[in-house]
Parts: sequence; C-alpha cells; structure tokens
Amino acid sequence: MTLRSWHATFWNMTVLCLLAAASLAASSAELAAGERLSDFIRPLVGTHGEGNTYPGPAAPFGMVQLSPDTERDLWETASGYEYSDPSVMGFSLTHLSGTGIPDLGDFLFMPQIGEPKLVAGEKDDPDTGYRSRFSHDEESASAAYYQVKLLDSGVNVELTAGERAGMMRFTFPASEQASIMTDLAHHLRGNRFQLIWSHVRVEDPATVTGFHLINGWGKERYLYFAARYSRPFDSHRIMSDGNEVRYDSYQNYRFRSRNEAAGTNLQFLAEYQTKADETITVKVAVSAVSAANALKNLDAEAPGWDFDAMREATRAKWDEELSRIEIDGAQLEKETFYTAMYHCFQAPNLYQDVTGEYRGLDSNIHQADDFQNYAVFSLWDTYRATHPLFALIQAERDADMIQSMLAHFDQSVDALLPMWSLQGNETWCMIGYHAVPVIVDGYLKGVRGFDVERAYDAVRKTAMNPDYDGVAAYDKLGWVPFDEENESVSKTLEYAYDDYCIAQLAKALGKEDDYAYFMQRADNYKNLFDPSVGLMRGKDSQGNWRTPFNAHEYVFKGDFTEGTSWQYTWYVPQDVPGLIELMGGEENFCEKLDALFSFGENDSEGMDDVQGRIGEYWHGNEPSHHIIYLYCYAGQPWKAQEKLRRILRTQYGNQPHSLTGNDDCGQMSAWYLFTALGFYPVCPGDDYYVIGSPAVERATLRLSNGSELTVTAENLSEENVYVQSLRVNGRPYSSAMLPHEQIANGGTLEFVLGPEPNKSWGVERQ
Amino acid sequence: MTLRSWHATFWNMTVLCLLAAASLAASSAELAAGERLSDFIRPLVGTHGEGNTYPGPAAPFGMVQLSPDTERDLWETASGYEYSDPSVMGFSLTHLSGTGIPDLGDFLFMPQIGEPKLVAGEKDDPDTGYRSRFSHDEESASAAYYQVKLLDSGVNVELTAGERAGMMRFTFPASEQASIMTDLAHHLRGNRFQLIWSHVRVEDPATVTGFHLINGWGKERYLYFAARYSRPFDSHRIMSDGNEVRYDSYQNYRFRSRNEAAGTNLQFLAEYQTKADETITVKVAVSAVSAANALKNLDAEAPGWDFDAMREATRAKWDEELSRIEIDGAQLEKETFYTAMYHCFQAPNLYQDVTGEYRGLDSNIHQADDFQNYAVFSLWDTYRATHPLFALIQAERDADMIQSMLAHFDQSVDALLPMWSLQGNETWCMIGYHAVPVIVDGYLKGVRGFDVERAYDAVRKTAMNPDYDGVAAYDKLGWVPFDEENESVSKTLEYAYDDYCIAQLAKALGKEDDYAYFMQRADNYKNLFDPSVGLMRGKDSQGNWRTPFNAHEYVFKGDFTEGTSWQYTWYVPQDVPGLIELMGGEENFCEKLDALFSFGENDSEGMDDVQGRIGEYWHGNEPSHHIIYLYCYAGQPWKAQEKLRRILRTQYGNQPHSLTGNDDCGQMSAWYLFTALGFYPVCPGDDYYVIGSPAVERATLRLSNGSELTVTAENLSEENVYVQSLRVNGRPYSSAMLPHEQIANGGTLEFVLGPEPNKSWGVERQ
Repeated sequence: MTLRSWHATFWNMTVLCLLAAASLAASSAELAAGERLSDFIRPLVGTHGEGNTYPGPAAPFGMVQLSPDTERDLWETASGYEYSDPSVMGFSLTHLSGTGIPDLGDFLFMPQIGEPKLVAGEKDDPDTGYRSRFSHDEESASAAYYQVKLLDSGVNVELTAGERAGMMRFTFPASEQASIMTDLAHHLRGNRFQLIWSHVRVEDPATVTGFHLINGWGKERYLYFAARYSRPFDSHRIMSDGNEVRYDSYQNYRFRSRNEAAGTNLQFLAEYQTKADETITVKVAVSAVSAANALKNLDAEAPGWDFDAMREATRAKWDEELSRIEIDGAQLEKETFYTAMYHCFQAPNLYQDVTGEYRGLDSNIHQADDFQNYAVFSLWDTYRATHPLFALIQAERDADMIQSMLAHFDQSVDALLPMWSLQGNETWCMIGYHAVPVIVDGYLKGVRGFDVERAYDAVRKTAMNPDYDGVAAYDKLGWVPFDEENESVSKTLEYAYDDYCIAQLAKALGKEDDYAYFMQRADNYKNLFDPSVGLMRGKDSQGNWRTPFNAHEYVFKGDFTEGTSWQYTWYVPQDVPGLIELMGGEENFCEKLDALFSFGENDSEGMDDVQGRIGEYWHGNEPSHHIIYLYCYAGQPWKAQEKLRRILRTQYGNQPHSLTGNDDCGQMSAWYLFTALGFYPVCPGDDYYVIGSPAVERATLRLSNGSELTVTAENLSEENVYVQSLRVNGRPYSSAMLPHEQIANGGTLEFVLGPEPNKSWGVERQ
Repeated sequence: MTLRSWHATFWNMTVLCLLAAASLAASSAELAAGERLSDFIRPLVGTHGEGNTYPGPAAPFGMVQLSPDTERDLWETASGYEYSDPSVMGFSLTHLSGTGIPDLGDFLFMPQIGEPKLVAGEKDDPDTGYRSRFSHDEESASAAYYQVKLLDSGVNVELTAGERAGMMRFTFPASEQASIMTDLAHHLRGNRFQLIWSHVRVEDPATVTGFHLINGWGKERYLYFAARYSRPFDSHRIMSDGNEVRYDSYQNYRFRSRNEAAGTNLQFLAEYQTKADETITVKVAVSAVSAANALKNLDAEAPGWDFDAMREATRAKWDEELSRIEIDGAQLEKETFYTAMYHCFQAPNLYQDVTGEYRGLDSNIHQADDFQNYAVFSLWDTYRATHPLFALIQAERDADMIQSMLAHFDQSVDALLPMWSLQGNETWCMIGYHAVPVIVDGYLKGVRGFDVERAYDAVRKTAMNPDYDGVAAYDKLGWVPFDEENESVSKTLEYAYDDYCIAQLAKALGKEDDYAYFMQRADNYKNLFDPSVGLMRGKDSQGNWRTPFNAHEYVFKGDFTEGTSWQYTWYVPQDVPGLIELMGGEENFCEKLDALFSFGENDSEGMDDVQGRIGEYWHGNEPSHHIIYLYCYAGQPWKAQEKLRRILRTQYGNQPHSLTGNDDCGQMSAWYLFTALGFYPVCPGDDYYVIGSPAVERATLRLSNGSELTVTAENLSEENVYVQSLRVNGRPYSSAMLPHEQIANGGTLEFVLGPEPNKSWGVERQ
C-alpha cells in the first residue's frame, strides 16, 4: 500500500488530480478498491492557527501520541506543533488534541549528529540548540504515521503509535558521532520551574526508563516512560544541568553511578557510530504508575521491532472506528468528515496500564477491573456534541468514560465529578458540572454498563457541593451573585442547564422530589434575564443588576466565561420556549438572533484568539455552538440551515488552517459531524435532536446497539442548503425537532434539499 | 504499672535510691517482681553530643520512630534531638538512630495555642515560631513512650509507637484557639530546597493524608503519611507559603478546593476549641508506597484509640527482644546493656506496608512475599558487630535483611549490593562492599532462609563491578591508585577484607577457582604496606608511594576514610598474622599498637567530631573498633583486656552523653554488647571470635537456633579486668581465639577475672 500523506495529496498536483477523479468515482458508500477509510485522515488539519491539534500518530483514544514539537512556550500552540514554525525541537510521547491550554509533551526524543546539544534553542535560529530546520516538502502525516526529514542533521524520522506504546524509526547518515537524545525536562508547559523532578535509568545497554513530575495544568502529574533501542548503544551519557553524570562527579548529586540520575534538567544520550542510511528504531511506552509498568506496556504492545506492523495495526483500528459512519462524498468532504471523526476519537485518552492499574485523582494507584479507565475530560466542551456522539455510536466507550468519571468522584477529596480532568488531576478549568449531562444523556440514550444509582448519587452530590464555585449562593438565591463569585452569569446559566439534566435522571429513576427540586433550579436562568435590556445580566447578592453593563464586552473573570452577554443570553438549552417567552415571542427572539449575526467587527470586545466570527457569533468557541439551531425552535429553521451549511463550508476542511477554533478534544469536530449529518443535540440530557441541513449525500451510522441509521440528502450541492422535505423512517416529517426514539433503533432520514427556503417545513411545533 | 522515665530514675534521688536497692537485690538473671527488661531502656542515652540517637518511641526494627526534633540544620544533630537544646520544634514520625548524616524527620506535628505559627523559629528565641521551650524536668522517655510538657503552650505531649503506626496524645489547656499543626515541609535535611514536592489531603473531617518527596541523603525519597484524629476538627486550614489555600485564592495554584494542596511549603492545621485538660489523640502511620497504604498501615496497626494499649504492646515486644540476652548486674550495668540492645535493635528498619508492598531502589513498587523487607543499611558500620550479633541471636531477621539486600541488588541499575541504603535509595555513603561480610558471616554462622547461590552471584558481581570505586584498577594493579581514586588506601584494605569473605563463601559452596581468586585479592593489603615507614600508604597507578606522607593526618577525600594511616594500618582483619609478619613480628606489632594508644592530643589531625580518643585510637568511629583486640593475636591479650574494660566503663553508660561517637545504627552499641559479653567478631566471615574481658557477672544468650549460651565472670569488679582463666563448655580454655563452633549450639563460657594480668593465659596460638 502506498503511503499518501496529507502533503502528497494536497500539494502534489498530479496526485491531487488522480484523487479528485477517484473521489468523483466514489459516489456510493462503497470504498474504491484498495481504499480505506483511514486514508481520508489528514492529521495536519488544525495544526495551523487556533485548532491546536497535533500531526503525529495516535491510536483511537490512545494513551500515547507521538508527535513533533515546534513550540513549548506559547499557549497558542498548546499541542506543541504550529504548522508555520520553521524548526522542530524533537518528538515527544504525549499530546493533547485541540485544547486551549498547553500540557503533556512528555519526554522529547531527538536524533543528532555531532556533539549533542542539550537545549532546544531558538525557533528561528535552530543552530542555537538541538532544534532542526524542516520543510513541509519532506514531511508527511497520515493515520498512524508521521515522517519528517531533519534538514540540519539529515536524519529521517518516522513515528507510529499503538495504544500505550509507539515506535520511532530514525534513518541516519554515516556519522562518527550520532546520538538519540531524550530530554526529560521537555514538556509543553514551557516553564522549567513547572518540572518538579525527574529521573532516568539505563536499565541495560538498549533500555532506558525515566520519570518526571510536572506541576502544570494539573497540580502534580506523574509520568514514566520506557524505551528500548533496536541497537545497543555504543556508549551512553546522562547529562544533568549540562554536565555528564558520572562516578564521583559531585556535580549535581553525590552519585557513584553513570547509569542513573535524578534532577530537574536531565538528558539521556544514546550514542552510536552510524553507517549511511542506517536505521535505528526506538520503541517507547508510558505509564502514570511506574517505570515497571511502562516496560510492561511496552513489551505487551510492541514485543518486536516491526514498525510497519504497528502502523498497520493502528491504521486498521482507525478503519474500524471510522466505519461507524460511512459517507458518500467527494474527496474533500470525506477528508474533512473522517478527519473530524479522527479528532473526535482522540480523547478522552486511555489512562490505564496493561495491568489494569492507573494513578487516580488521589495519587494512589488504582485497579480498573471492570472498565477501561480514561483521562482527559474537557467536559465544558465535550458534553455538547462529543459525548452525545459517543452515546450514539460509541456507547461502550462512553460507559467506560462514565465509569472513569465515577472513579474520579470516588477519589475526589471534595466529592465532585470531574470538571476538566487531566491524567489523575483536576485542572479546575472552566465552569459548571458538565459530567452531569454526559452521564444523564448517556443513560437516557441507552448507554449502560455502569451503576446508575451510584452515578445519580455522584451527580447529585456534585450539584449540591456548597464549596464549589458559588453553588451555595446559587442554591440559596437562585443565581450566583457577581459580588461573591466571578463568571457568575455563565455559572448560573450552566448550573440551571445541568440541573435540568439531573431532574431528567431523577425522573427516570423515580425520584420525584429530586425531580421537582432540580426542575426548579433549572428555571434559575430566568433570574438573570434583565427585561430592561433583554439580555442576561449579572446580579449581586442583594439583587442589584451589574452596573455599568456592557453587553458586548468580554472581561477576564468578569460575569461571563469566555464570552459576552449577547452570546451567553442564548444559553438556555433546557428551556428555549421559556427564553423565547422572556424575549417577547418568536419574532423578537429571531430578530435578536439575527442581530447577533449582524454585529460589526468592532461591536464586541475581548477574546481576540477566537476565530470563526459571524457578527458576535463566534464559532471558534463553544458558547456559540448551539445558537444557530435556536432558530429552529422559533419557526425560522431556514435561517439555521443556511448558517450551518455556511459554517460547514467555510470553517472546516482538509487544510492545516481549517479549524477556526480550538478543537477542544473533539468538540469542534463533533459539531461538524452532527451538523453534516443533519441533526444536533442542542440539549444533551433531553430526548431529542434539532434538525439542520445535511452536508453529505449519504451516510450510514452504525449505532451502538448494532442498528443502522441512514441519512440521505437528495439534491445536495453547495447552493442547495435548504430543507425542502424530510422523511423519517419512510414517513413525511415536518418538525425540526427529532425525538431520539425515532432513531434509537436505526432507520432513515431522507432529506430533500433545495436552493430556496421551504418556509412551511420545520415550523410545526413538536 | 508506674512509668519510670529516665529522668524519674536518674534525677529523682528518692527513686534512685530505691532502684539502687532493687538492683542490688537482683543478683541473678531473674527479674524482680514486676520488673521488666524494657524498664532498663534509657532512650535518652546518646542524645547529648555525638551519639545522635533520638529519645522517642519505636518498636524493635520499626518503620516509624515518633520523636521530638530540636534541630534540623546541624549534622551534629542528625537524629533531630540534642539534649542540650532549649526548645523543641515538634514531633516527627521517622528518625535515624545514630547516623552521622541527618535525614528523615518526616512530617512534624506540633500543637499550638493562639494563632498558629507556620515556621519553626529560632532555637534560642522560640517565640519567633512554633517552637516551644521545654524542660527536662517535665520530660520523660522510656520504652515505647516519650512525654514532654510544652512550656509555652501548656500542652502536654505523649508519644508511643508500633511498627508502622504511632500515636500522639495531646492534653490541651482550655483555649478558644487550639490547633495541631502538621508541617509537611519539615525534614531533617534542613535545607528547604531538598524538599522537592509535597501534597496534603483532608480525607474527611478527622483524617488527613500527605506526602513529600525529599532529595536528601537519598536522591529521591518518597514518604506518605496518614493521620486520624480522635476528635473531628472544628475547622481546618491548609497553608501554602504562609497563605491559606482556599477556593480561587490563586495564591499558589489554581485550586478550587480547600481540602487539598500541593507545593513545597505546606502546613495543615486541625483547629479546635478545647476545654481544660482535654485530650486529643492523633494516630499516624507512614508508607513509602502511597497514602492509601499509609491508611492501611494505620488502620491495621491502630484500629482503636487506646494509646496505652499500643504502648504496652510495644513494651512487650521490647521485653521479648531484650530477653534474647538476660544479664545479671547492677542497675547502671543493666541500663547500659539493655539500652545498647535497644539501640542495636532499632535498625535496619522495617520498610514494607501491611500489604507486603514497598518502594524499591528502582522507585517501583515491589511485593515482598516471602520475607520482611528492611531498609536503612549502614553497612560500613554494622557489618562489624551488629550483623554478627544478629547472626547469633536474630538469625531470622538477619535472613530477611539479607533477602532485602538481595532485592536491592536486583533493583540496582549498577548490579551492586547496598553500600549505605536508605528507604529505596542508595546514598553511596562510605566505602567497600560490606554487604558481603554480612551475607557471608550470616551464612557461615548458620543464617538460612535465603538462596545462597543467588546471594553468591550478587556478592561476586558486586565485587567485580568495574564501574564502582576503583575496583577495576584494584583488580588490575592489586591496589586502588590514589591518582585515580580518593580514599584509595581504605578502599584497598576494605576490599581485600571483603574479598576474603567472598573466598570463604566460595569455598563453602565448592567454587574452588573463585576461592583461589578472591584469596589472592585478600592479600592485596600487602601492596600498600610501606616497610620504610611500617604503615599503610597510598600508592599511585605507577607504583609510587604518596609523597609527602603524613601518617597522622586525616584529609577529606585523601587516601584514608575518616581516619589516618596510623589507624587504617590495622585494617587487616582477614590476616592479622600476615600483618604481624609485615611489621616484623609480634613484639614490634605490639609496640606499634602501644604507640597508637600513646600519641598525644596534638599528634594527629582531622576528624574533630570523633570523640572517645585514647591516643590515636578513636573509639567514636568504626575504623578503630577492632584494633584493641589485635593484642590477642600477638601474645599480649591482657593489654586488650584492660583497654576494653576501660572503654566499657568510660565511654558507655546510662546518660544522655554516654555515647562517645555516632551510634551508627547500633554498631557502637553492638561493640558494647559483644565486648561486655567477653568476645568479639574481629573478622566477620571467619569462623571465630576473639576473647576480651567480660563486664557482666552472668549473661544468658538465647541463640537463634534455640540453644543457650551462658557467660559468667567470677570475681567481676571494676578493678578485676584481667582474665585469669576460662572454661569453655566446662573445659579449661587457654586461647584468646574462640571458634564459632564452640558456641554455635550454646554452652558456657566461665571466666575468672582478677586485678593482675595472667600473662600465661591467651598466649597460646590457635
């Protein structure tokens, strides 16, 4: 099978033409001969600009993500790789996908020629360190594979990854002094003071283990690695603060060993004389538990030295995962769609060794016997569309993720479900208690395999914890007062939504009192709607409105979370009719929505890093993600249809710059997937989707329960964005609201699209 | 049972008189009614001056040692407590006994009244911190118990300890603001930069766990603790760098919890309103594995709140351990003897949780299934007499210690047995490979329960490791050359001795080639004897003697380890006849020994902290420990007899200042015990003891194999130091050399002593 990298397909015009022809031929969901779904993965999508994805290989939901790092100091490059950077530092073992805050990037490997350098050096002056120039012309990335030629050393680097282990294949020039450096001090927080401690051990002349403890986004993140080399070192050195660690050196610590060291600035050098085109393969694995477990993970997942076999195995996993949705479409659409699925399936990450052990939130080692433990829960983002997608087509994993969150709860000293959890840490990032909608939406949509009563207990305790983020005042007053708590409006609105979810679960479990209680809290959004301005507005503990009040302004630690009043005012997913009523009816509501999309560039302030703007709708950040669909609640679904299709077309694609905002562990991509399929979970935890306008001719979803849901879009074209008619399971369907039960056991959604709105479709109230 | 503390017995004249009467009555090995061997333990012995013992309670070979700390910055106070200090910082959970280098002192607890202070403050101005004045008049220490009244706060503190858990009983005055502080930053390395990281968690309103990582004597020492409080906190605070950790404080880290924190300067405050004489008990435990294991250790060993029951249980363990040797004697002799046994049985320390888990040298968590794992091996000291004593009366533990050392070997990246190991760390302290004599002496004296072939492999690999301390050059040249390695003479001499031990084991296992090889290495001492000066002298790699040469000078990192040429010249325990020959015969040899004891105060230089000097014989440090016995090899045993008895009388006792040098995990005390019993293992690994002059009227040793060895000393008195005659197992015995086989199955040693030398006894060559 020929490797086709993103570059090969995108920049090489010859290949591009061939592929264009191939994509035209692929008019059904059948793949062309020899074609595989994983061929459509473009790992470079999102690596330029705000997407914050990484280009290196990873298995679906895998524990390792081997990838090049070009940057470790900028939050704008949270995944470590910015496509426009001219030089690369090396290749580290773990990466976050699409987050707005950098972390991971553990254990950098970099081959070198000549006397090894021990610092990365300047991005634009790579000769100042071990950095190397590279060119996108000699770089390729595809499913389970990344390759780059290091222009300064002439070393060709290839990476692949399994779930817990990966492989690096280095092809060297002839050299008297070649080396492979591991920088244990490297991590993507940049700040060296955030590396608390590290150690490295040369277990034998072809095996190294190491460890570091990072006080980064999480307060204390332990990670161990193990590396085995296909060729024993000719010699090796451990460097500490620039000095070789050796017997009695007394430079750093009173060691009498040259085979191990501890400190805060360690590099390991595996040294070789190499022949021309000599290949040395390094296989690596990580563990949050111990070096011994990292070795176990390594030896279990990479027992041999067959780089290509690991790559093929992981590609096959991607084929399998992507086959959960098979679509027809042109090459661009398939690449965009399957790359979105790829990004959706990169997090949460497996966080458990082959032994079943993992390091929990309490820093203790736990055994996950009856589930796979996952970490990296970007819940403020992913509760919106990512987990609802999992509930639909990844229920088994979703159940494991829920089990993982319940384990987190059990390990939480504050008895809280995760907010934004990162490998045995709570980062306390963002707001709300959005593990709740994940659990509730999953359960109500049929995700099983966890103890729902135990889950309910965790959900309820989390929502009732008086120590957390103004919840006590919220419970007492009906809103979070801005004089006691920042981001008070956003917190109030998001709590009210989460509370609605709890009420739904309470109802399902026959807890009538709780249902009534949380439904009452779900109405708390009304307390912050100021009719005098027609917007959500901060209120203090005495009931006074925030004055002065700028509805277009985002202020860090102000009343709103990464947004303005004009954006957050729409955050009532649990009761859009109630919001419509507050705003004076559907006409006013839609006019106000129209206004949101019409503000000029200078009308709103703040959040300069959020792109994808249409007026004050900022698609690049999550508070906007449900807003377009709100037209569908108010009798003007065609306005949603047009905007959704415009965003699919203009803010996604197969290019490095194609993501307009942080992918946020798959939420930007999950929005794409649902929206391209023609429906979206505006209110996870409730029992319906909202219908938009599909962007794929045909899609077949293999649902978690084994049934198939087929979506077809007749007359699909760039112009034909308006729904003319819809048949659901063969019967005409005229509402824009689609109950989950209609598709829970598969079925068909048959859209007919056209260039003009059918203003009589989708206006029927459910 | 009335508690009789050291102070009560020593300072209270009334009690003293009573006791003196009691001791006169106790003329047989029978104890007086109600009297227990543990009554003779004086934990304060060695706490004043160089002894470096600690006064707090510990179980035999226990994992925790709860004890007051008065100092954490001075190496002279390595155990944390100096008797002459006027104020106490608090009470920490772990302590080393008698080492010359400070470490441990983990997790300081200190009750306070008023607004809690967070720094210890100045020793002589305790109001500057949480220190408190105290008085020896309101302090008491006995087996399993320590008590002190904090004069500043009025809180009475009582401590007791089991194996892995301990209890602290605080009796408060009435106070609106009482607290019990835990300082996680406290440890006995003093230097705050050596605390790498710590965290603390309030598990529930009466339970706290915590952790710190210390880059101290060991490169990375992890320790966790758990504490349960008999009364839930009225309130609690976590302080980090002086600030309260609370929701959104952003002072140290972006926490939204007041129940946990991480950092490098943490204190936990349990806060109470107390009534007069209100008692709050805190039970504590440690683990090197995890907080979860610390809790398991705590709940297994201290399930209830009965302080007195834990104290009594540990006292009973001491009674049992001390009963391995029962002696007759006056109160002073019994206190001195049993306190020496107490100190001998304080290390190595249990280092394994109730789960069987421990953190190994490789930082991994290991399971010790078929042995008890021990840590803290001060082998350069303890191979001399401590382990030979264990082989004789503690063989089961000695076997576990050997297993622990073999596990260390397996976990050593350098394939080395421990040198000076400390809780999962190799400190690389001191020289030689003296795990070898421990293993060999144990095996040859009947210690079983370990795989001797595996042990032999470890012993041999350790002695052949070319990376270690000049061994490669030693093997090649026959000496360690001073131009390549410091402490070259001491290393050469000690290697040669260790090699002799290996040869003995090789012989026992039928490895004839190895026997020949290592016996050849055992002769290497001869290569450094310079006949022109009649002393051991450094030699470089070209064979040139060290010039200039000062035979009385100790130079740090010079040719000798904590000693001079005049001291180290005697270090040929494996071949004293060979040394005698080198020195020109017995007369010359004895004259030279006489000279050693006759040098004036200003004749030798260096090592000012070593006390117990008789000429250039420095009893306060180990290189001298075997020297007096050498007279017995050269026909003048009476000179040994007189000196030994003089040292027993003048350099030991029942006083805080009674130890003239670091007790070094029991070696100083083991020297006392053997010498007081009348024989000493000059060459562990060989099959004999050397006979001195007993200092107890009667002693019965319960040997490891269940047999009994009885030693009697007729006419024992302060003046009667000379052996007149000896019967071994009933038969007259005239040699000063006692083969182990004579006592291996018990028997009798019947000495008759007198005031003048019997110059015809002990001159017979074996």
